[in-house]
Amino acid sequence: MASVNAPRGMRDFLPADKARRERVLAVIRERYRAHGFDEIETPVVEEYARLHAGIGGDNEKLAFNILRRGLDAEAVRAAADDQSALTDLGLRYDLTVPLARFYATNRGELPGVFRSIQIAPVWRAERPQKGRYRQFMQCDIDIIGDASARAEAELITASLDTLAALSLEGATVRINDRRALDGMLDVFGFAPQERPGVLITIDKLDKIGPSGVTAELRERGATPDAVDAFEQFLNRPQTLEALPYGEAQIRKALPEGVSHEVVTHLVGIGDSVAAARGGEVPLLFDPFLVRGMGYYTGTIFELAHPSVSYSLGGGGRYDGMIGRFLGQEVPAVGFSIGFERIVDLVALDDAGAAPSVVLVHDKDVPVAELLSLKAQLIAEGSRVRLEQRPKNMKALLERAEADGYTAFASVRAGTTRDALELKPLG
Amino acid sequence: MASVNAPRGMRDFLPADKARRERVLAVIRERYRAHGFDEIETPVVEEYARLHAGIGGDNEKLAFNILRRGLDAEAVRAAADDQSALTDLGLRYDLTVPLARFYATNRGELPGVFRSIQIAPVWRAERPQKGRYRQFMQCDIDIIGDASARAEAELITASLDTLAALSLEGATVRINDRRALDGMLDVFGFAPQERPGVLITIDKLDKIGPSGVTAELRERGATPDAVDAFEQFLNRPQTLEALPYGEAQIRKALPEGVSHEVVTHLVGIGDSVAAARGGEVPLLFDPFLVRGMGYYTGTIFELAHPSVSYSLGGGGRYDGMIGRFLGQEVPAVGFSIGFERIVDLVALDDAGAAPSVVLVHDKDVPVAELLSLKAQLIAEGSRVRLEQRPKNMKALLERAEADGYTAFASVRAGTTRDALELKPLG
Repeated sequence: MASVNAPRGMRDFLPADKARRERVLAVIRERYRAHGFDEIETPVVEEYARLHAGIGGDNEKLAFNILRRGLDAEAVRAAADDQSALTDLGLRYDLTVPLARFYATNRGELPGVFRSIQIAPVWRAERPQKGRYRQFMQCDIDIIGDASARAEAELITASLDTLAALSLEGATVRINDRRALDGMLDVFGFAPQERPGVLITIDKLDKIGPSGVTAELRERGATPDAVDAFEQFLNRPQTLEALPYGEAQIRKALPEGVSHEVVTHLVGIGDSVAAARGGEVPLLFDPFLVRGMGYYTGTIFELAHPSVSYSLGGGGRYDGMIGRFLGQEVPAVGFSIGFERIVDLVALDDAGAAPSVVLVHDKDVPVAELLSLKAQLIAEGSRVRLEQRPKNMKALLERAEADGYTAFASVRAGTTRDALELKPLG
Repeated sequence: MASVNAPRGMRDFLPADKARRERVLAVIRERYRAHGFDEIETPVVEEYARLHAGIGGDNEKLAFNILRRGLDAEAVRAAADDQSALTDLGLRYDLTVPLARFYATNRGELPGVFRSIQIAPVWRAERPQKGRYRQFMQCDIDIIGDASARAEAELITASLDTLAALSLEGATVRINDRRALDGMLDVFGFAPQERPGVLITIDKLDKIGPSGVTAELRERGATPDAVDAFEQFLNRPQTLEALPYGEAQIRKALPEGVSHEVVTHLVGIGDSVAAARGGEVPLLFDPFLVRGMGYYTGTIFELAHPSVSYSLGGGGRYDGMIGRFLGQEVPAVGFSIGFERIVDLVALDDAGAAPSVVLVHDKDVPVAELLSLKAQLIAEGSRVRLEQRPKNMKALLERAEADGYTAFASVRAGTTRDALELKPLG
């Protein structure tokens, strides 16, 4: 017999949780749409070959694959040493690979600059642990077909507006550019083949500090002169935070010699965000922001909020990926809100919600009377749940309140709508 | 290289389609909630053993199974003759099996009578054909813990109200009871072991008519006397449709000898629906309605609408299923709206939608000016898309209209909000 629980690492959502999640998703969807993004949907599965084309990085190893149908015993035996023959489809592990496939399939029917919304679950066979699930929601917006800084500015503006609509005002976006990182490693003299490893170490700067980073780089056997130059750079007296986001701050944060084009792009993002937000620029240039995914080619960003120490989302530019599917260069940049991380931080405004009434009735009230009362209250705009009076009335009312009900009333045989006395819950 | 299309039998949804689907789902969710149902969510996968416990009927064979992780070559070879060892999870093929598992897992935190909403996709490896997909949405409501006719009445009332909110007024529910069918076959003298086959033939009555049914029963080798008795019954002069739904109609439609209890339950549903709908009873008793699923134990229903010849949904009582998971009897009844069948029939009211504006700009308008204009319109409550002026302006405007935009305006360098002239689309 199968176990009585949800599959390992996956969750059931009870009514109160599900209602909260749907309300938060509705706000996200509405704000994204206001900013001119359009929602699309793709199947939850994609072809195995596409999910394992090297774009998904470490996530490829975490994909749940679908057993190919119609295999005979011989085909199974033949696949013992290469199990990829056992599967032809897999559950998506992110929304970016499916978006690239969707764009390749449907580009003829999409605007020249396509602003997409994807609000959908993804699956990863991670080792289950607190706060990490094998099925979780992602909320992505992407702009395909715009190489300019306007694309980043529209993503950032839409994301900050969405967080504000969810009571998470005051968020900031840490920003960097993969090309600035590459330029920096170039200036210090790290060899091309050691750079991926160097970036993995630099990514730990927040956790292990400058001395931890340089120690780890030496341990890795990175080019000693480059590590020395980097150490010297890290130990400069920094006053970046006193400067507003802009060219002066970015130039000062980078070593001499990083491409002017990159700085111009980063400055352009700030100018555009400022125009959209009446002068306010909640951006912070962070020359050591790395982000893991291998497909990023330009700007990268992460969403920070003063209420929590972890990132609430992020994204970046991946100009190369869609071209791989399509055989032509297509610029693309995306931003993802970490839905599972924000859903519990959000304060929702209940002002607009419909009144919700629990009718607690005696056992002997005829069903026809109950359903007539229920129908009258629904017609008045209420949400109505019927409950037979239990021994433990307190538990019933507490559960109803948790499920979002706001009032209750007692019903005896013969109670009419006019005689119904609604009492507030809680 | 993988193909550029969505996986076989599955669909991408472009912005206009996706927006329409989400709006229809929002109406369904809102109406179901008003009727006191609470939405839950389960993972898209369940354990293989649970999905293949014989409850899912023919759908079990159509399940997509997940390749078990961590199998070594020997384990694969050993599974050649019993492929179930290759899989431990599968994508759900319906929402009823997961609901039964959910209830068993979480019943301690649910009300005594639990009214659930599930709005979610399911997967079946059907041979792709027009109107039949391998991933599709189901919209189910179920009531667990209420054996009375009130449960059926609440489901029917909520479903009809939901259809009406989607412009599909005038729907009717064809209703029958598996126990009435069993009683009828008993009265005619069909042997217990031939009944499943007899029901499959009776289910074709709409298509092949009474003479087709009796011919097929004789061909099947069903008990000749029973077929004769059934033929005589089918050929009675019928005036059922002149009678309103109720005891007289039901008694007249059934052969003498069918259980009184069943008739009382069916009559009770009508009385309760009448109470909820101010006397109107859009029910039609159909003694030959069968419905395929083996797990039904009592009432079964199908949703009909004058605009189409096919069923728009249906459901039934499955008192035995949850008990199998839980080791105790739990009454349950469910009703499913066929979302993929109704979504294209629905007329949506656009009155409440936010104004949507496409800003068509010259190439030389500074990005900061564009984003400032966009932000001002969003602050006024609009949805805003930026588009650079193309050669083919007509195509752009047509696509924007298809995506739900209602107005456009031309933007040149220096255009201010006050100077912006909004023109209606379409």
